[in-house]
Amino acid sequence: MKLPKPISNLIDSFERLPGIGPKTAQRLTFFLLHFPQEELERFADSLVELKKGTKLCNVCKNVTEFDVCSVCDDSSRNKKLIAVVANPLDAFALEKTNFKGVYHVLHGIIDPLNGVGPDDLFIKELIDRISRLVDEPSFDSVNEDKIVEVILATNTSMEGESTAMYVSKLIREKGFDSDRVKLTRIARGLPVGGDIEYADDITLSRALDGRLEV
Amino acid sequence: MKLPKPISNLIDSFERLPGIGPKTAQRLTFFLLHFPQEELERFADSLVELKKGTKLCNVCKNVTEFDVCSVCDDSSRNKKLIAVVANPLDAFALEKTNFKGVYHVLHGIIDPLNGVGPDDLFIKELIDRISRLVDEPSFDSVNEDKIVEVILATNTSMEGESTAMYVSKLIREKGFDSDRVKLTRIARGLPVGGDIEYADDITLSRALDGRLEV
Repeated sequence: MKLPKPISNLIDSFERLPGIGPKTAQRLTFFLLHFPQEELERFADSLVELKKGTKLCNVCKNVTEFDVCSVCDDSSRNKKLIAVVANPLDAFALEKTNFKGVYHVLHGIIDPLNGVGPDDLFIKELIDRISRLVDEPSFDSVNEDKIVEVILATNTSMEGESTAMYVSKLIREKGFDSDRVKLTRIARGLPVGGDIEYADDITLSRALDGRLEV
Repeated sequence: MKLPKPISNLIDSFERLPGIGPKTAQRLTFFLLHFPQEELERFADSLVELKKGTKLCNVCKNVTEFDVCSVCDDSSRNKKLIAVVANPLDAFALEKTNFKGVYHVLHGIIDPLNGVGPDDLFIKELIDRISRLVDEPSFDSVNEDKIVEVILATNTSMEGESTAMYVSKLIREKGFDSDRVKLTRIARGLPVGGDIEYADDITLSRALDGRLEV
């Protein structure tokens, strides 16, 4: 028995997605056979429009429909507090924390094993952005502070840590000293609700290193 | 921060699929942002063509590109050995076992709690098919046996069992006695590699009931 071509084509498409194996791809495809045609067409339209209808924000490189994204366009946000993230979804996650700064999306992480180097990410654009902020201190009318803070908010994985380290070194190398650009890294420690007993030793030692006065 | 419309549309489409929650839908959508446009269009085409390019086999109701599916069209298959399955994927799974009969796809399972009754499935078509086979014994040239065997190969869940029971009762009620139509149910017992120690008691008692002479 061979699966009909229209079915195997869709299974192939689903299988190219991350975390979807052959069995799941089959299940999804046969499930969609019960969908009304209009809904399949709506799904198809959103696939075609995904990239056509979106671009990268001129300032922070986040995905947006406009030239400048809603965060960079919001005058109430502190433009001198920049969280550097790897992906739009990371910015989306930080957004739920009531963070009042802005973002810079690198669109990836330095990962030499998978052929991703610093030039493949929006790191140069981050440096340019910091230059503009430092050179024009009147740029931000809300926050009178002349110091720009760059929060390195990449994952705490090996690649995330080395990307954060690379970016912070580069910022210093470009001559932005701590008087003008403050560099911070998100805290590494026990997640809220975590058990000391079950925490791994690297996390625990990071939690000790990063202890705060109460 | 609001997600751009083209992105949230695609997330919504993915979320309608079984087993895909909001987080996975987001992840898939942002992953697809890195796909070339042609590939997104190929994916979209296969969604649109899924139902347009397929129909149900006139004989067994399996999904196919033609009027009669490749299994029903294959003269080497025993047309008097019919495995009744709930879904095309079940037929596909049985196909890997070197099964040499044919299938009948009900396209669902009797499930009153979800509003699926016997009339929503291709049960009437199964009865008609059996009638034709019984009335025309010369129909099958490969297998000279005049007995039709119907293997009830629905899941061994509660709904699967009751569907199998419903179908077998109906076949008998329609006057097909065991001289002409043999009814069988797939064996319920320990899966291969299974531990008696960890088997649940219903499975174990089924395995005892279904014991075979060695």
